[in-house]
Amino acid sequence: MGAANRPIGVFDSGLGGLSVVKELKRVLPYENIVYFGDTGRIPYGTKSPETVIKYARQDEQFLLQFNVKLIIAACGTVSSVAAFTADELPVPFIEVVTPTARAAVKASKNGKIGVLGTNTTVNSCSYKNAILSLNKEAEVVQMACPMFVELVESGWIERDDEVTTATAKRYLKPLLLAGVDTIILGCTHFPAIKDIIADICGEGVTLINSGEQAALEAAKYLKENGLNGNGGKASYYVSDRPQSFAKTAEILLGSPIDGEVKTVSLDEVKK
Amino acid sequence: MGAANRPIGVFDSGLGGLSVVKELKRVLPYENIVYFGDTGRIPYGTKSPETVIKYARQDEQFLLQFNVKLIIAACGTVSSVAAFTADELPVPFIEVVTPTARAAVKASKNGKIGVLGTNTTVNSCSYKNAILSLNKEAEVVQMACPMFVELVESGWIERDDEVTTATAKRYLKPLLLAGVDTIILGCTHFPAIKDIIADICGEGVTLINSGEQAALEAAKYLKENGLNGNGGKASYYVSDRPQSFAKTAEILLGSPIDGEVKTVSLDEVKK
Repeated sequence: MGAANRPIGVFDSGLGGLSVVKELKRVLPYENIVYFGDTGRIPYGTKSPETVIKYARQDEQFLLQFNVKLIIAACGTVSSVAAFTADELPVPFIEVVTPTARAAVKASKNGKIGVLGTNTTVNSCSYKNAILSLNKEAEVVQMACPMFVELVESGWIERDDEVTTATAKRYLKPLLLAGVDTIILGCTHFPAIKDIIADICGEGVTLINSGEQAALEAAKYLKENGLNGNGGKASYYVSDRPQSFAKTAEILLGSPIDGEVKTVSLDEVKK
Repeated sequence: MGAANRPIGVFDSGLGGLSVVKELKRVLPYENIVYFGDTGRIPYGTKSPETVIKYARQDEQFLLQFNVKLIIAACGTVSSVAAFTADELPVPFIEVVTPTARAAVKASKNGKIGVLGTNTTVNSCSYKNAILSLNKEAEVVQMACPMFVELVESGWIERDDEVTTATAKRYLKPLLLAGVDTIILGCTHFPAIKDIIADICGEGVTLINSGEQAALEAAKYLKENGLNGNGGKASYYVSDRPQSFAKTAEILLGSPIDGEVKTVSLDEVKK
């Protein structure tokens, strides 16, 4: 197989990273993709950094078996500790935080940027620190939105959903009162309800989708290095297949899952 | 220390079991209580039965160090596999499912019983099977309410909370349409929003609090065996102290935490 047609590898602690696959398919429709969701060890967010690094290394080794030409960490938690694994890899590594922070700083006119994330992501301040390293004058307003993950997994994502709209209004209020003009959707689940969020924020606010930014970063790398593929197939590996797998996958991918799904044992991942 | 003044041991995979402690304090205010929340290994619900049994044994051994006179598994998941550990214990073991199912069957006049639980509890059918073993004519309507846990942990528990009320209405609708006259709050977190649930259900529906039933079962055992204590102190052990510990504990206990809180390493629990 020529270097260009080697797949792109994407991993995450669970199914959330499928929203990155959705963006990859849109931005790079001719690429082959191998996805690994470590559903058997989800969540990574509550584990120690040492454990997350160990898991990330194992996930990367699993993807390298498929001769991937690029690895994307779709997981915000892994992205925060990515520097520790990226240098060890024989292929380039893209994570979600850096390109997303860059896009947010570029988009914001008033320097007031909101970050929506899980409790773990907000506590880690990863997006906030990345923004401040690019613009130390920026004002960053973070908001942990733990309910959003459950709302998305429950499929309560219709644009007029009463519960999701009321929840989003509550979470967004402090950001809008602070006058942010840019908001980072800093969790892989949140793009599934971006229309609801956009309706509340109004036209004056730009939403930055972290998955889209990672996909654009991948597209830039492939183009610059003449590595664009001409396939378009995806295969999906998970370390545990939850009962709600198909439903959750469809919500995050935005369409029914379109390739082979295989469950691999954790022993296979750990070796 | 006399046998009667030995503490009651309570364990759970996390902080949810504090709602059982709340009921114990109400029903048995003079008992000493030792609580262990295995926050370092939460959630148990997604783990295999073998793993849950292993963890439960370790949690029980941890509590036995305190010379407890009784062990309560506040965790619905552990309760489902409790039979495998109860016989090994040198002290009586109380779990939440059996007494709760008994109370529901007793309370229901029309034999139509609703069960609200987490995804794991509903998938396990533990309450449903326990009800049917007591009354095979019963009609059991289960509803997984994953949002409730997050709503409670977020503290959105005021009686007029718009989001929680709208969510509860959605979950309860199929149960009310089916004509249930009794509903089991089959998750330790749910009693924190029982007023909201009661307002929606109306007076014709009896709510059964699994924590209260476990506490009543404990009270019955202590009285019958002359083992009532005259202390009233509580101490709390967790295997990881999340940032939101104090807030979540207060929500579930219904008052600020009133005793010593110690974080123990998982190595200490595993030995």
